[in-house]
Amino acid sequence: MPIITLEGPPILEKAVRRSLVEELTRSAAKAYGLPEEKIIVLVRENAPDQVAVGGVLLADRP
Amino acid sequence: MPIITLEGPPILEKAVRRSLVEELTRSAAKAYGLPEEKIIVLVRENAPDQVAVGGVLLADRP
Amino acid sequence: MPIITLEGPPILEKAVRRSLVEELTRSAAKAYGLPEEKIIVLVRENAPDQVAVGGVLLADRP
Amino acid sequence: MPIITLEGPPILEKAVRRSLVEELTRSAAKAYGLPEEKIIVLVRENAPDQVAVGGVLLADRP
Amino acid sequence: MPIITLEGPPILEKAVRRSLVEELTRSAAKAYGLPEEKIIVLVRENAPDQVAVGGVLLADRP
Amino acid sequence: MPIITLEGPPILEKAVRRSLVEELTRSAAKAYGLPEEKIIVLVRENAPDQVAVGGVLLADRP
Repeated sequence: MPIITLEGPPILEKAVRRSLVEELTRSAAKAYGLPEEKIIVLVRENAPDQVAVGGVLLADRP
Repeated sequence: MPIITLEGPPILEKAVRRSLVEELTRSAAKAYGLPEEKIIVLVRENAPDQVAVGGVLLADRP
Repeated sequence: MPIITLEGPPILEKAVRRSLVEELTRSAAKAYGLPEEKIIVLVRENAPDQVAVGGVLLADRP
Repeated sequence: MPIITLEGPPILEKAVRRSLVEELTRSAAKAYGLPEEKIIVLVRENAPDQVAVGGVLLADRP
Repeated sequence: MPIITLEGPPILEKAVRRSLVEELTRSAAKAYGLPEEKIIVLVRENAPDQVAVGGVLLADRP
Repeated sequence: MPIITLEGPPILEKAVRRSLVEELTRSAAKAYGLPEEKIIVLVRENAPDQVAVGGVLLADRP
């Protein structure tokens, strides 16, 4: 039941998203010594006005 | 202040959603010995291209 | 793969913890129309100096 | 790398959102003794049918 | 019911922790236009072998 | 600032933990097109009485 949650900017290309969840799953399965079917990945995509770094929203960056 | 967070597929019927949050709240209030008004439930709904099991996005399942 | 995360004070009695995860699982399985084996519950227990309500740590409450 | 996650109702005014992330960042930087650029803020906005208090969805409140 | 979750290194001084949750609560109450008693803060403290930046655990930093 | 959070059983061997965070970081950096230094990984380890699958705590599994 290990769960990997990703928070990041939107991933627009489906192929990139597919490879990413495959790779994360493979790495986690190996580390935990569990079959890949036990690994869950949640992909959260944040809009630029939902994230701030250093007190500045990404949407306000020059 | 106990907080219950649900991650799952969308729950389309309002009646189902209402019963679910009622039941979760009742169970948690009983277990913690707290009044129901202290229990918060957050319902997160994930699209099928935001969740992968076994390295495969739910959106790609046959 | 629905995931229920609980944040609350420690639950000391094992029997209470067992009933709680059973009830939450049953409620979620019914609402999502999924078998119970698909439901994951994570129980997080917070110390009183890790939670504040109204700006006051629970550990500082009279 | 401290991360502050906010869960709350939507914040419609951009100026309010900006001040909020600035203030949270400043407070956290001071407490951790770290430069502000190290602080990340994530703002999550929940619809009224995604949150229940006391077993009642905010959308169902009178 | 807004909830602020902090993830960061341990905060050892109780006074610092108190001021931090007070300040975060005040900022959030103002932004949401809600009384401070509605604001919950959760403080999570991570050990240096539980956090990596740039692929390196904080515990392994020189 | 992408953030990867792992929830799983304890990872006892330091070398395994190191490789895991390295691999997750590399995969995420590639997918997001960002330098590895921007990727944060949080490793959460859950005790067997904090996780239930199918309504049964892992600690109660035969």
